Amino acid sequence: MSDDARFMALALSLGRRGQGAVWPNPAVGCVIVQQGRIVGRGWTQPGGRPHAEPEALRQAGPAAKGATVYVTLEPCAHTGKTPPCADALVAADVARVVIACTDSDPRVSGKGIAILQAAGISVDVGVLAHEARADHMGFFLRINAGRPMVSLKLASSFDGRIATATGESQWITAPPARRAVHAMRSRHDAVMVGGGTARQDDPSLTVRDLGVTRQPTRIVVSNGLDIPLGGALAKTAGDIPLILCHGSKAPTELIEAWKSLGATLIACASRMGQIDADDMLQQLGQHGLTRIFCEGGGGLAATLLQAGLVDQLIGFTAGLTLGADGLPAIAALQLRHLAQAPRFTLTETARIGPDLLHIWARADAPA
Amino acid sequence: MSDDARFMALALSLGRRGQGAVWPNPAVGCVIVQQGRIVGRGWTQPGGRPHAEPEALRQAGPAAKGATVYVTLEPCAHTGKTPPCADALVAADVARVVIACTDSDPRVSGKGIAILQAAGISVDVGVLAHEARADHMGFFLRINAGRPMVSLKLASSFDGRIATATGESQWITAPPARRAVHAMRSRHDAVMVGGGTARQDDPSLTVRDLGVTRQPTRIVVSNGLDIPLGGALAKTAGDIPLILCHGSKAPTELIEAWKSLGATLIACASRMGQIDADDMLQQLGQHGLTRIFCEGGGGLAATLLQAGLVDQLIGFTAGLTLGADGLPAIAALQLRHLAQAPRFTLTETARIGPDLLHIWARADAPA
Repeated sequence: MSDDARFMALALSLGRRGQGAVWPNPAVGCVIVQQGRIVGRGWTQPGGRPHAEPEALRQAGPAAKGATVYVTLEPCAHTGKTPPCADALVAADVARVVIACTDSDPRVSGKGIAILQAAGISVDVGVLAHEARADHMGFFLRINAGRPMVSLKLASSFDGRIATATGESQWITAPPARRAVHAMRSRHDAVMVGGGTARQDDPSLTVRDLGVTRQPTRIVVSNGLDIPLGGALAKTAGDIPLILCHGSKAPTELIEAWKSLGATLIACASRMGQIDADDMLQQLGQHGLTRIFCEGGGGLAATLLQAGLVDQLIGFTAGLTLGADGLPAIAALQLRHLAQAPRFTLTETARIGPDLLHIWARADAPA
Repeated sequence: MSDDARFMALALSLGRRGQGAVWPNPAVGCVIVQQGRIVGRGWTQPGGRPHAEPEALRQAGPAAKGATVYVTLEPCAHTGKTPPCADALVAADVARVVIACTDSDPRVSGKGIAILQAAGISVDVGVLAHEARADHMGFFLRINAGRPMVSLKLASSFDGRIATATGESQWITAPPARRAVHAMRSRHDAVMVGGGTARQDDPSLTVRDLGVTRQPTRIVVSNGLDIPLGGALAKTAGDIPLILCHGSKAPTELIEAWKSLGATLIACASRMGQIDADDMLQQLGQHGLTRIFCEGGGGLAATLLQAGLVDQLIGFTAGLTLGADGLPAIAALQLRHLAQAPRFTLTETARIGPDLLHIWARADAPA
C-alpha cells in the first residue's frame, strides 16, 4: 500500500466516526501530513459541521503550510452555513490535496478542485475511490436518487429462519452479535422495522451499552398504523425521534394519537395494502436521512428487495437449524426465475462470537 | 507453533489425502524427522493399506534409526491384513513417537503405545489431538457408535432457499463453489441424496473435472424406491457403486430391477412413510462406510437433523435472495423452542468465488 493509500485509509476511518451523526451532510475524514508526519486529523462533527477540513486545519495550525491534505470527498466550494473548505485550504497555503472521490452534489462537483488548482495547489483524485464511494453512498444516493441508502440486516439460523414456528426468536444470535448490531445502528441515521416486528417484539430500537449519547431516529413502517400505543416505542416517542410511515388510509385518530406522543408521521402512497417503498424512501430522503438500517421483519425486507431498494445485505448466521416451519427472514418475492433474483457481492465476513457476519453490497451499486 | 505441532500439522495434511479412499480404515498421516530434516512421509493408501507408518518408514530407510515419528493416530498393535505398525516402528529403531490421538478401537487403544514404550521408545500423545479427532471422526464414530459421520452440505441463497418457487435451482452458486463440492465429495466415502433430489435433478453424483480415478459410492434414500429407472443413476449403476436405501414396503419388482442394474439395496426400518435414519446409518456403517456427504434435499436434511445425526454442516451461501416462496434448504423440524434446535460451532469460513463457504461442527461432538 502506497503512502497516499495509507493516509487516505486513515482519513476514511476518521470519516466513518461521523456516520449516523451528520445527516444530511456527508461523513468526511481529513488527514494533514507534513514531511511524513501527521499534523492534523479531522472529521465531520455531529450535526454536520464543522466539516472535516477546518477541523484538521485547526489542529495543524501553521504546520499546514506546504503540507499534503488527504480528504475523503472533494472539498466543498459553496458557502452554506460554513465558508467553503476549498477556500480554507487555499488560505492555509497547503501544497497538495489528495481526494478520494469527487462530490456528486452539482453545487460542488469539480468546483472545489478548480479553486485549489487555481491557487497553484497540486490535486490528485481517486485514491481509495471505491472505498470512499461506499462510505458516502447514502449521501450520494440522496443527492442523485433522492433516497437514503438502505442496509438490510437479518439475523437468522443456518437455514435462514428468524424464529421458530411458535414465534420464539430470542435469541438466535449470541450477545456479541447483538452488540455488533447496536454499533451498526449507531453508524446509521435511522433504524427501521416493519409494524409486525414492532407488535411482536415491542422493541425500543435504541443503541444500548455503547456509551452513545446520540440515538438514531427510529422508523416504523405500518400501512394501517397498527402499532401498540402502550409499547416501548410510544413510551419513548417524546424523547428519541420516531418516524411512523403509514398508508393513506391509516385511521385519523391513530395519526393524531401518535402525533400527540411526539412522533413524526409520514403518509406514504400504498398499493394492495402495502406501503409504496419508493415513495416512502423519497420522503425519508426529503426529511434529510442518508443511511437507514432496516432490521426486518420478513415482510418489509421483501418489500424493499422487490423494489430494488436494498443497497447492503448484512447477515448474521447462527449455528442452529430451525427448519421450514420456522419464520422466514424474507417473505415471498414472487420470483419466477433465478435470473430475476436481486444479486449482491460479498464484501466482508467475520466471526462475531459464535456467529458468522457476512456483508454483501448490491451488485449493480447505484451510487 | 512448536516444531512438534508443525510436523504433526504436516502429518495431518498427508493423512487427509486418504480421506474417502481408505474406508473402513482410518486415513492416517505419518512424518519421520531425523535431526530436523524430514526423511519420510506416508499416508494410508487407497483401499486402506499399506498403513501410513510403513509407507513413511520405507521412504526413510536407515535414516529412521534414532528419528522422531509423527503419526496422526496411535500405531496399530494388532495383526490384521498387515503386521502391526507398532512392531515396524520398534524394528526400525526410532527414538521417539509423537501421536496426535489414541485409537478408539478396543483392539488397539493403548496397546500400540505399550509396545513402543516396552521397546524403550519415548512416546508423546496429544499433539493437535483436536484436529486429529476431527479428521478421524468417521472412523471413530463407526467404531464407537456403529455409524459413519455425516456432513450435510446445503448450497442456498442468502435467505436459505435452494430453488425458486418454480423449482429453478441451477445455478444458485457459481462454478468455483460447485468445483469445491466435487473436491468435498472426493474426500468422503459416499455421496448421499434423497429420492426427491434424484427425481428432480437426475444427478449422477460423481466427482468430475478433478482428475479423480476413484469415485465415491452413491447413496440414494427413497422409502418407496421411487427413483427413475431411466435416469443417470440407473445408467451408471453397473460402473460406479450405488446403494439404494429403501423402506420395508418398497415394491419387490423395483428392488429386483435395481439389483439387476448392479445397485446394492439396503432395506431399512421406516416410520410414518419415512426411513428410520438411525437404522439406515447403522446399516451403512456395517457396509464399512465412515464418511458420508449428504447433499439434501430438504426432506432428507430434516430427517438427519431431527435424528441428531448431522456431524458437520457445510453451507455455501450465494449473494441473492429468493424469498419465502422459494424451496427451503431444510424441511420442517417441528421445533417448539429455540433450545431444542440442533446447535453447531463455526469451524471454517472462506470465499469461494463470489460465494461464502461456512463450515460448522456439531456442538456436542459425539466422537
